[in-house]
Amino acid sequence: MSRHEIKHVVITPVAFTDPPLLNAVGVHEPLALRAIVEVHTASGLIGLGETYGDAGHLELLATAADAVKGASPFDVGRLWTVISGALGQTSRGTQTGLMGPETSGKTIGSVVAPFDSAFYDLQGQVLGEPVWSVLGGKHRDKVDFSAYLFYKWALHPGAVEDRWGQALDPAGIVRQAQTMVSEYGFKSLKLKGGVFPPEQEAEAIEALRSAFPTLPLRVDPNGAWSVETSVRIGKRLGPTLEYFEDPTMGIGGMSEVAARTGIPMATNMCVVETGHIPEAIRLNAVQVILIDQHYWGGFLPSLNLSALCRTFGIGVSMHSNSHLGISLAGMVHLGAATENLTYALDTHWPWKNESEDVVSTADLQIVEGSIRVPDKPGLGVELDREALSRLHEKYLASSIRTRDDTGYMKSIEPEYEYVSSRW
Amino acid sequence: MSRHEIKHVVITPVAFTDPPLLNAVGVHEPLALRAIVEVHTASGLIGLGETYGDAGHLELLATAADAVKGASPFDVGRLWTVISGALGQTSRGTQTGLMGPETSGKTIGSVVAPFDSAFYDLQGQVLGEPVWSVLGGKHRDKVDFSAYLFYKWALHPGAVEDRWGQALDPAGIVRQAQTMVSEYGFKSLKLKGGVFPPEQEAEAIEALRSAFPTLPLRVDPNGAWSVETSVRIGKRLGPTLEYFEDPTMGIGGMSEVAARTGIPMATNMCVVETGHIPEAIRLNAVQVILIDQHYWGGFLPSLNLSALCRTFGIGVSMHSNSHLGISLAGMVHLGAATENLTYALDTHWPWKNESEDVVSTADLQIVEGSIRVPDKPGLGVELDREALSRLHEKYLASSIRTRDDTGYMKSIEPEYEYVSSRW
Repeated sequence: MSRHEIKHVVITPVAFTDPPLLNAVGVHEPLALRAIVEVHTASGLIGLGETYGDAGHLELLATAADAVKGASPFDVGRLWTVISGALGQTSRGTQTGLMGPETSGKTIGSVVAPFDSAFYDLQGQVLGEPVWSVLGGKHRDKVDFSAYLFYKWALHPGAVEDRWGQALDPAGIVRQAQTMVSEYGFKSLKLKGGVFPPEQEAEAIEALRSAFPTLPLRVDPNGAWSVETSVRIGKRLGPTLEYFEDPTMGIGGMSEVAARTGIPMATNMCVVETGHIPEAIRLNAVQVILIDQHYWGGFLPSLNLSALCRTFGIGVSMHSNSHLGISLAGMVHLGAATENLTYALDTHWPWKNESEDVVSTADLQIVEGSIRVPDKPGLGVELDREALSRLHEKYLASSIRTRDDTGYMKSIEPEYEYVSSRW
Repeated sequence: MSRHEIKHVVITPVAFTDPPLLNAVGVHEPLALRAIVEVHTASGLIGLGETYGDAGHLELLATAADAVKGASPFDVGRLWTVISGALGQTSRGTQTGLMGPETSGKTIGSVVAPFDSAFYDLQGQVLGEPVWSVLGGKHRDKVDFSAYLFYKWALHPGAVEDRWGQALDPAGIVRQAQTMVSEYGFKSLKLKGGVFPPEQEAEAIEALRSAFPTLPLRVDPNGAWSVETSVRIGKRLGPTLEYFEDPTMGIGGMSEVAARTGIPMATNMCVVETGHIPEAIRLNAVQVILIDQHYWGGFLPSLNLSALCRTFGIGVSMHSNSHLGISLAGMVHLGAATENLTYALDTHWPWKNESEDVVSTADLQIVEGSIRVPDKPGLGVELDREALSRLHEKYLASSIRTRDDTGYMKSIEPEYEYVSSRW
């Protein structure tokens, strides 16, 4: 046991190019931040985790890194206790508005998560088993992903245009979807909404329906709509939608929209820690919960949550932020091991430059909309130290230390104001 | 992976001496039945599980044994799918009345359970880690058990008196408790009720309170009381009880008793599969759920259930039937790995002859009411083939093939009738 005890942890903040994707709180900055967590054992193994790269989060990660020293990679069930004990009562503000309120439980989950990932990666390496096997076996051989469509500008101010071009209306969204589907073979489509007036976004969904008559469609306005607006648009799009993701803020509002439209309501905003679950269930507010290893505390709490969803007949999908290859690998392993993951997973993957990563993801290609579940031990990805150092340099060279989509938008469009329920 | 693939499974029914313990449906027969499940890998390892030994259960186990051949010991998360697929829709009747209604979910869980145990035992052996470590780490170094007091006859008809003697009134129960506490150091006491008129059992609890002023007390009438009786006795015993276990049948009744007495209600009868949980939570019917690896489907589903209980603020305790050493080991590992196991575990252990077992339990002594969590790989117990064959001979020599406390009682007291809500 002591042979594989945790010796030290290395946390490296990195930055990578991100296109100007629009959302309810502003626009993605030119660089997205992540932190790469390496957990080293006395036996010389390295387990990997990937998490948010915001400055406040890095501080909490450092505290957690100290707390896990001496642990066994099998102590995944104790990570929450150990790390929350080390952090004390705390909460921080990242990504205002896009992932719901920052609560203590969600903060702790976000700090625990990369260690859970790294610990399972280590277990798999020790055993010679892929992470999905250590998680109890795979329920499928391929994990389906959904295209994640965004309204976007053609370019960041002063930058060269990216290959995706502009998408500011229904025709632009359909064009983007056509490229994504033709390149990756996605078999379901999600539109990030909350950017333009709701009727215009409903038109985009209807245009997608015409262009792709058989593909499941989702829209996610990130809580930017009032209950009345959500009901109105919900009734309009009704049977067109596979599910209706966070049209409005809060469990109470979601519950009302669910009752009045009958559309399955999905969330990664109003239920983001276990403390939110009892009320959400009492009010029948959500019919689909988006699990996410990155803030629910890793693979183990995500599997516990999925079992809870199975018990209550709640569907399970998966959330994504802009991410690199370690996260992608984790999503595939978790996606394979989650029995009741009945929806295609979200991913920002196509928005990332293929050349920018800290691991090789040659084994993790999206083909026909899905990724084949890998069989290598652990997560099956290995750090490319040179690439890691390039993306770390990129981080150091940038002045971005905390994601701020609103501030960036205001720097370009000074009249922009973030309004939590805009329509 | 294929090195440790499941090659074959051996299921051996065994019988061991059981004292005449009284309960709401009759009296324990002179022999208790169990089935020992050995799961053999291609690599020559043997994983162990222990489960019910009733004839109908043995048939289902045989079907499951065929279904798991070729699996990896890491496929614990797929056992439910694989075995329920092999069994189809089925349900059987064991232990009428004592563990709630037999439902399909509970039946499947009971069949899955010994394989889950054996698979984790194998994982631990492959890894050189104890089962609690494979389950995510231990939250305690010792697992507390509760004394399990029974009304009992001095002897089975025609048998020699056992060392416990008769206990048919409050004084007898106190005497029994004194012996148990002095021999095992138990720090909490549970009385199996539902045998005598409720007032008399309340007197026994009050006598225990006088004799043991500081020990937590539980009473479990196995649903033999009406709601009105449960409320009346509940109000009388009120603050004396740590929890009130299944005084009455069904989620509706339990909910009413909970609301009218304010005593924490515990159950292993009205919530025995995940299908029961939504209604129980909606009605706030139970404040403590007794997990049990043997019918919830093993360690993994028990941990999922415990996580669900944590989410809803429901306490977790552990249920026991008459059992041998493999189950005892499993209870200790699961007890160590369950973060929110806040109550001392039930066990019938003291009622078993020490000399009768299929494994050595020298490492699993109850001292000062608790068992030290073992550090050997896997479950840490090894089959004694000679002892196994002795208890199998005992099974073959007996005519008991299905537990029938009621039939046995009627054979001795012909006027006895089982009544589901007697008082």
